[in-house]
Amino acid sequence: MTRRLRMGMVGGGPGSFIGGVHRMAANLDGQIELVAGCFSSDPDRSRQSGADLFLDPARVYSDFCEMAEAEASLPADLRIDFVSVVTPNHMHAPVATAFLRKGFHVVCDKPMTATLQEAVALRDEVEKSGSLFVLTHNYTGYPMVKQAREIVRSGELGDILKIVAEYPQGWLLDSIENDGQKQAAWRTDPARAGSSCCIGDIGSHAENLARHITGLDIEALCAHFTTFVPGRLLEDDGNLLLKYRGGAVGVLHSSQISAGEENNLSIRIYGTKGSLAWYQEHPNELAFQPKGEPARTLRRGNPYLCEAAKKFTRLPAGHPEAFIEAFANIYLEAAADIRDRVDGVPSRARDYPTVDDGVHGMAFIETAVASAASESKWTPFLAA
Amino acid sequence: MTRRLRMGMVGGGPGSFIGGVHRMAANLDGQIELVAGCFSSDPDRSRQSGADLFLDPARVYSDFCEMAEAEASLPADLRIDFVSVVTPNHMHAPVATAFLRKGFHVVCDKPMTATLQEAVALRDEVEKSGSLFVLTHNYTGYPMVKQAREIVRSGELGDILKIVAEYPQGWLLDSIENDGQKQAAWRTDPARAGSSCCIGDIGSHAENLARHITGLDIEALCAHFTTFVPGRLLEDDGNLLLKYRGGAVGVLHSSQISAGEENNLSIRIYGTKGSLAWYQEHPNELAFQPKGEPARTLRRGNPYLCEAAKKFTRLPAGHPEAFIEAFANIYLEAAADIRDRVDGVPSRARDYPTVDDGVHGMAFIETAVASAASESKWTPFLAA
Amino acid sequence: MTRRLRMGMVGGGPGSFIGGVHRMAANLDGQIELVAGCFSSDPDRSRQSGADLFLDPARVYSDFCEMAEAEASLPADLRIDFVSVVTPNHMHAPVATAFLRKGFHVVCDKPMTATLQEAVALRDEVEKSGSLFVLTHNYTGYPMVKQAREIVRSGELGDILKIVAEYPQGWLLDSIENDGQKQAAWRTDPARAGSSCCIGDIGSHAENLARHITGLDIEALCAHFTTFVPGRLLEDDGNLLLKYRGGAVGVLHSSQISAGEENNLSIRIYGTKGSLAWYQEHPNELAFQPKGEPARTLRRGNPYLCEAAKKFTRLPAGHPEAFIEAFANIYLEAAADIRDRVDGVPSRARDYPTVDDGVHGMAFIETAVASAASESKWTPFLAA
Amino acid sequence: MTRRLRMGMVGGGPGSFIGGVHRMAANLDGQIELVAGCFSSDPDRSRQSGADLFLDPARVYSDFCEMAEAEASLPADLRIDFVSVVTPNHMHAPVATAFLRKGFHVVCDKPMTATLQEAVALRDEVEKSGSLFVLTHNYTGYPMVKQAREIVRSGELGDILKIVAEYPQGWLLDSIENDGQKQAAWRTDPARAGSSCCIGDIGSHAENLARHITGLDIEALCAHFTTFVPGRLLEDDGNLLLKYRGGAVGVLHSSQISAGEENNLSIRIYGTKGSLAWYQEHPNELAFQPKGEPARTLRRGNPYLCEAAKKFTRLPAGHPEAFIEAFANIYLEAAADIRDRVDGVPSRARDYPTVDDGVHGMAFIETAVASAASESKWTPFLAA
Repeated sequence: MTRRLRMGMVGGGPGSFIGGVHRMAANLDGQIELVAGCFSSDPDRSRQSGADLFLDPARVYSDFCEMAEAEASLPADLRIDFVSVVTPNHMHAPVATAFLRKGFHVVCDKPMTATLQEAVALRDEVEKSGSLFVLTHNYTGYPMVKQAREIVRSGELGDILKIVAEYPQGWLLDSIENDGQKQAAWRTDPARAGSSCCIGDIGSHAENLARHITGLDIEALCAHFTTFVPGRLLEDDGNLLLKYRGGAVGVLHSSQISAGEENNLSIRIYGTKGSLAWYQEHPNELAFQPKGEPARTLRRGNPYLCEAAKKFTRLPAGHPEAFIEAFANIYLEAAADIRDRVDGVPSRARDYPTVDDGVHGMAFIETAVASAASESKWTPFLAA
Repeated sequence: MTRRLRMGMVGGGPGSFIGGVHRMAANLDGQIELVAGCFSSDPDRSRQSGADLFLDPARVYSDFCEMAEAEASLPADLRIDFVSVVTPNHMHAPVATAFLRKGFHVVCDKPMTATLQEAVALRDEVEKSGSLFVLTHNYTGYPMVKQAREIVRSGELGDILKIVAEYPQGWLLDSIENDGQKQAAWRTDPARAGSSCCIGDIGSHAENLARHITGLDIEALCAHFTTFVPGRLLEDDGNLLLKYRGGAVGVLHSSQISAGEENNLSIRIYGTKGSLAWYQEHPNELAFQPKGEPARTLRRGNPYLCEAAKKFTRLPAGHPEAFIEAFANIYLEAAADIRDRVDGVPSRARDYPTVDDGVHGMAFIETAVASAASESKWTPFLAA
Repeated sequence: MTRRLRMGMVGGGPGSFIGGVHRMAANLDGQIELVAGCFSSDPDRSRQSGADLFLDPARVYSDFCEMAEAEASLPADLRIDFVSVVTPNHMHAPVATAFLRKGFHVVCDKPMTATLQEAVALRDEVEKSGSLFVLTHNYTGYPMVKQAREIVRSGELGDILKIVAEYPQGWLLDSIENDGQKQAAWRTDPARAGSSCCIGDIGSHAENLARHITGLDIEALCAHFTTFVPGRLLEDDGNLLLKYRGGAVGVLHSSQISAGEENNLSIRIYGTKGSLAWYQEHPNELAFQPKGEPARTLRRGNPYLCEAAKKFTRLPAGHPEAFIEAFANIYLEAAADIRDRVDGVPSRARDYPTVDDGVHGMAFIETAVASAASESKWTPFLAA
Repeated sequence: MTRRLRMGMVGGGPGSFIGGVHRMAANLDGQIELVAGCFSSDPDRSRQSGADLFLDPARVYSDFCEMAEAEASLPADLRIDFVSVVTPNHMHAPVATAFLRKGFHVVCDKPMTATLQEAVALRDEVEKSGSLFVLTHNYTGYPMVKQAREIVRSGELGDILKIVAEYPQGWLLDSIENDGQKQAAWRTDPARAGSSCCIGDIGSHAENLARHITGLDIEALCAHFTTFVPGRLLEDDGNLLLKYRGGAVGVLHSSQISAGEENNLSIRIYGTKGSLAWYQEHPNELAFQPKGEPARTLRRGNPYLCEAAKKFTRLPAGHPEAFIEAFANIYLEAAADIRDRVDGVPSRARDYPTVDDGVHGMAFIETAVASAASESKWTPFLAA
C-alpha cells in the first residue's frame, strides 16, 4: 500500500483535550492522514474544527450516524480506513457501534464504555463485524512499560508478590466543573462519565498498567471512595486493597484532589527475585532491582532493551520521548494492523489493547464501585 | 549541672542492631556517658559487651532487676541518671517497670510493649513514678519532620484531605530467621515481638509519623495482612485503608518482603491548600507544594526553616545529617529534660515521644491485627 | 490560508538521524505536509526514501539544484513553501543558497555551515533574498528554556555571575566511524563536519543555550581539546573556560567519549539574586532557587509560567513533552512566520533561531578551535 | 587496651564550625574521650568552651605551647594520646609541630598548612617525630567513596579518560566577612587562610577526592580565579582545566558565590569501560555505569560492596549515614592506629589521609594560584 491511512474522528472539538492528543499521535509518524470528522454535535463548532484542521468541508459532519453512512458510501479510494472515537465515555459505545456496522475499523478512547453491560455488547459487535478495535490505553505504549512486561515474562522477578500502583492528580481539588471547564464537567457527571470519576478516569489506567505488565487477574478487592468536593456526584478519590489470583497482593490508590500532583501514575512490582518501578512523569527510565544486587536503571533507546521496547522507539537514548510518542505507538501498531487488512495480508500478532481489555476495564470499574458501597471487606471481581 | 548524664542500658548485646544505634545517638553530642549495662541475660555475653564498651566490670549485669537494685543503691554521684531499654519488645514493659520503680527515668525503644494491655499498665507505672519516659520513635527526630509538622500546624496546607504513608523493606524476603539472624528471629516470633511483625515493627512508625505531623487520629481502618514466607508466624506485609476523624482518608502500606527496598519510609500529606512529601532515605529535604505554585524543596540547615527544625540541626546546609543524628535528637531532648530534673529546674515543654504515644501505638497495632482478622471492612480504632 | 504548508527536504535519506526528527517535528501539529525531497544524491536511495514517505515520485530528486529549479517552476499552488536542509554540515550552505536564490524560505539544521566564512556569506544570501531562514537550535524550543530566559530577563536572578554548561555524550567512545555508522562517519570527518567534532556538534548547543537564556556574549575563552580515539581526526572531548562581557565567568564542557552519558545537556546559571538549573534529559522541569529561599521546581504546563512557556505547550502538566515536541516548536514558529509571508501579513516577532545565531555559532566554534591550538590562556571571541 | 583514647583539641572555641564536627566525629563510636583543650587564645573563651564540654578546668588552656608542655608532663595514664588541630589554616603548622615535638600524635584539619613551604617542613617534623599524623580530608571517609576507589582499582572502569569534579557553594555571595561571621572572616583573610580562599577551602577537597579515587596525578593545569565580592582579597570562584599524567583530562570547578548551592561536592569519572558518579549531598549512593549496560546504583550497607565500604558502615542499608559518620570514619581509623601504637602492636595498613596528602594538597593550591596569575595556558604541577 503506497499511501497514508485515512482517518476519521468523532469528538475532539473545541475545549477537548484528548481529541488533540489523538490527532498529534496519528500525525507524528506520517502514516495517517485525518480526512473527515464529526467534532461536535453543534454544526458550527464541528465546521470550525474542520476548518482549523484544513479538512474538506464536505467531510465535516455534526451527526456521527450521518458520517458513518456518508463515509461508507464514498468510493474505496476516498473513504476513511478507520475512525477514532474521542467523545465523553457515554458516547463511545453508540459511535463505535455505528462505524463497526458500516465496516470501519475503530480506535476508541478509554474507558471503553459507560457501563460493563455496554462493554459486553460492544465486544459482541466487534466480533460480529470482523473489524479491528483498538483501545487507547496509552500508557501501555511507553517503551519502558514494554520492557517491564518483558522482565516479568522472562521470569527475572520470580513470582510476583506485591503490586503498588498509584495515580494521584490534583486538578479537581476545586469544583472547576462549575466554572465551565469542559473536561471537569463531563468527567464528574454520571450521565456522561458513568458510575465512577476517579477510578473510572485514572484508577482504571493504573489497573490496566498492572495487568498489562504482570498478566495478573484480580480475585477480589476492597475499595474506599470519597467525594471531597461538596456537590460533586462522583468520587474524586479512590483507594483499593487487592488480592490477585495466585496469591499476590496489591495497593492501588488514585486521587484527583491531591494538591501539587499532576499526572503521577506509577507502578512498583515486587517479586521473589527482584522488583521494578516505573514513573509516568519520567517515562524514559525503568528501575529494576534484582534481589541482592545493585539497583539498575534501564533507559529508553539502549541496545540492551528487549525487542518490543526497541521497536517503539524513535530517538537515540538521552533524547527523551514522552506522552505523545507513547500514544503514537498505539496508533503505529493500529495502523500496521489496519494496513495489513487493507492490503489483504494475513493477521499478525500486534501489541495494542483490544476490546477484551475494554471489557475487563469496565469490570474493574464496576467491581470497585460495588465494593465502595459495600460493608464487606472483599468484593469478588465481576465476571464478564 | 557540670557533668555528663550517666546512662545505663538494658539489652543491646552481641548481634543487636538497635542497641548500638542508641549508644551512638547518646554519644554524639557529648552530653551522656554510658556507665552501666545489662547487655544480655547470658553473663559472659553481657560481660564481653561491657568490656568492649570500656565499662567498669562492677557495673555490668546479667539480670536487669539486679541492675536496677544495684544502681539504685549507689551514691547519687555515681548511679545512673536514666536507663535505655533496647531489648526485644516483650521485655520493654518489665524492664521499664523495674527501673521506674527504683526512681530512674527511662528511654525505651518502640513499639513500647508487646500488648496494648501492657502499654496501659506501663502508662500507669510512669504516672505513679513521676519519672520521665521517652519513647524513641526516632523518625520524629528528623528536622525536616519537625518542619513538616510546623507547616501543617501553621495552616499552610489548609484542611488535611489525604495521607499516604509507606514503609517498604525487603530484608525478610527469605526466611533468614531460620539462619541465625537474631533481628529476624525475634521480630517474627510472637512470643517476643507481640501479635504483629510488619505493622508492629515498621507500619507503626509510619502511623506515628502521620500522627506526629498532622495530629490526626484514626477513626477506623481496614487492614490486609499477608504472610508470604512459608512457616513464618506473623505477617510480613500489611496494607491499610484509613479513615481519620474529621474526614481525611489514608493509605498506609508496609512490607518486609519487597525486594530492593531498604528502609523506604515516606509520607505524603495532601490538604486543601497544598501538599508535603518526605522520604526517610533522603531526610534532608522536604517537598512542599502550595496549590497552584511551583513546588518547593526545603532543605535542612537553612535560615528559612522553623525554630524546631533549626534547633535540631548540627551542621550547615548541604552537609547532610541522617539517621543517627535524628535518633540523637531524641536523646538530646530527653537529656535536657532529665538534666532539668536533676538540677531541680521546673519542667519545660519538650519535643519527644512519650508514654502516651506508646499507648497509642499499641492501640494502632492491635486495631490493625483485629481488622486483618475481620471480614468487616472497617474496624473502629481501639480506645485505650 | 486554508491549507497546510508544503515542505521540501534535502538530506535525511536512509541511515540519517536528524532527517527523521525534522519530519516528525513538522508532522506533529498538522500544519505542514512533506511533498518533495532530495533525500540522497544516490537516485535509488532518494527514490526509496520518497516511496517510504508516500511522496509523488515526480517530486523526488537526487540533485538539490535540480530540485530547487523544478520546484520553483511548479505552479504556486503546488510548489513547496520552504525547504528543510538536513544534510551533513558542509552541504548546508550550498543547499540553502540554492533554495534562497529560487525564492524559497529555508529551515536549516545546525551548525549552520562548515566554516565561519561560509556562515557570513550565507547571512548575506539571506539578507539579499528577503526569505526567512530558521536555524533548528532545537533545545531553545523547550518551554522550560523559554521560562529560564524569562526569569533572567525579568531580573529575578540579578546580575549573572557564573554559567556552567555541560554536554556529555558517550556514543563515540569506540571508533564506530570505522564500522559503517553513518552519523559517526561524517561527524568525525573534517571534510564534512568542519574543523571541530565535539564542540561543533554539541558544545555549540551548550553555548547557544547559554546565550539564548542569558543574552551574554563571550569576551574570550580558553579551550582544551582532546582526541581520545586513535586515528580520529577531530576532537572528541572539548572543555572551555569562559569570560563573558560584563564580568560573568563560565565553564563549558562537552564530550563524546564519556561512557554512560547519553545526551546529557544541562545548564546552570548563577546570579546575585538566585540561580537556575535545567537538564535536557528531564526537560519538563526547571529548578529555580531564589537566594535564601527554598528551591523551587517549575514544571511545564502550569498556569504560573510565562507566556512563551505556555504558548509552546501542548499537554497539561504531568503529561510529559520531550525532544520532538521541542523540535516541533521551532517548526510551529517557523510555520507561523512562513504562513504570514504566504498570506501577505506583516512580519511579527517570532521566537526561533535565525541566520545571526548561525553566524554567532560558527564564530564560537572557530574561536574554540583557535584557542585549543594556542599556548595563550585567553583567545578573544572572533568578530563576524 | 581497655580504655578510651584521650584526645586534646586546639581550636574549636565559640563560633567555630569544624571544631564541633571533630568533637562529634570523635564521640560517635565511644572510642575517644575529649579530656583537654586550648579552644581559644582568649582565656575566658577557652574556659567557657571547656566548661560547656564538661572538662576539668585544670586541663583547659589558652596557649597551645603551654598545653603541649603541660600535657606532656602529666603521668602516662592521664595525659592525652593525641591532639586534634582545628584552628584556622595558618596555625595548623605551628600547633601540630609543637605537639609532635612533645611526642603526641596529631589529627589535623585541612588544608594542612597556609603554604607549601610550611607543608614540606611539617612533613619533615612528622618524619622526625615518628608520631602519627592524620589529615581530615573527611570526604574520603564516605563508604561510597571507598567503593568508587575500589571500582577504579579493580579495573572496572578501564583506563580513566576524564574527571569532572565540582564544588559549588553559595554562602559567600554576600560579604558576610564584614558582618562578624567568623568562618567567613578567616577564610577570606590571606593572613589566616593562605593564598587562596575558594580553591584552598573547597577546590582542594575536590582535587583530593579525584586523586583518592583514581590515584591520578596532575601534570599541568589552567586556572581561572575570580573575586566577585568587592573588597574581598582572595578568590571566591575558581575553575580549572586539568591534564593528568597518563593522558586523562579534567575539569574542576568550585565556587562560593553560587546562589542556592549548599555543599554540592561531586565527582564523575569516565573510563574506557564505564563511569562513576558520586554526589556528597546524597552520599549513600554511588552511580556506576558499565559501558553498554544499564546504569547501576550502589547503596551503602549492602553485601555486594567491597570490604572497605562495608568496614566503614554502622547501619543497615536504607538507614542513611552522612557527613558526621564519614568524618568519624577518619577518627575511627586514626584511633585504631593510635591504639596500636599505645599497645605496642606493629603498624597495620590504615585507610586515612596522611601528611603526604597534605603536602600534595598544598602543591595543588599553590599551582592553581600560580596558574591563575599566569598568561600561559598550562602551569606544570609544582614538585614538593
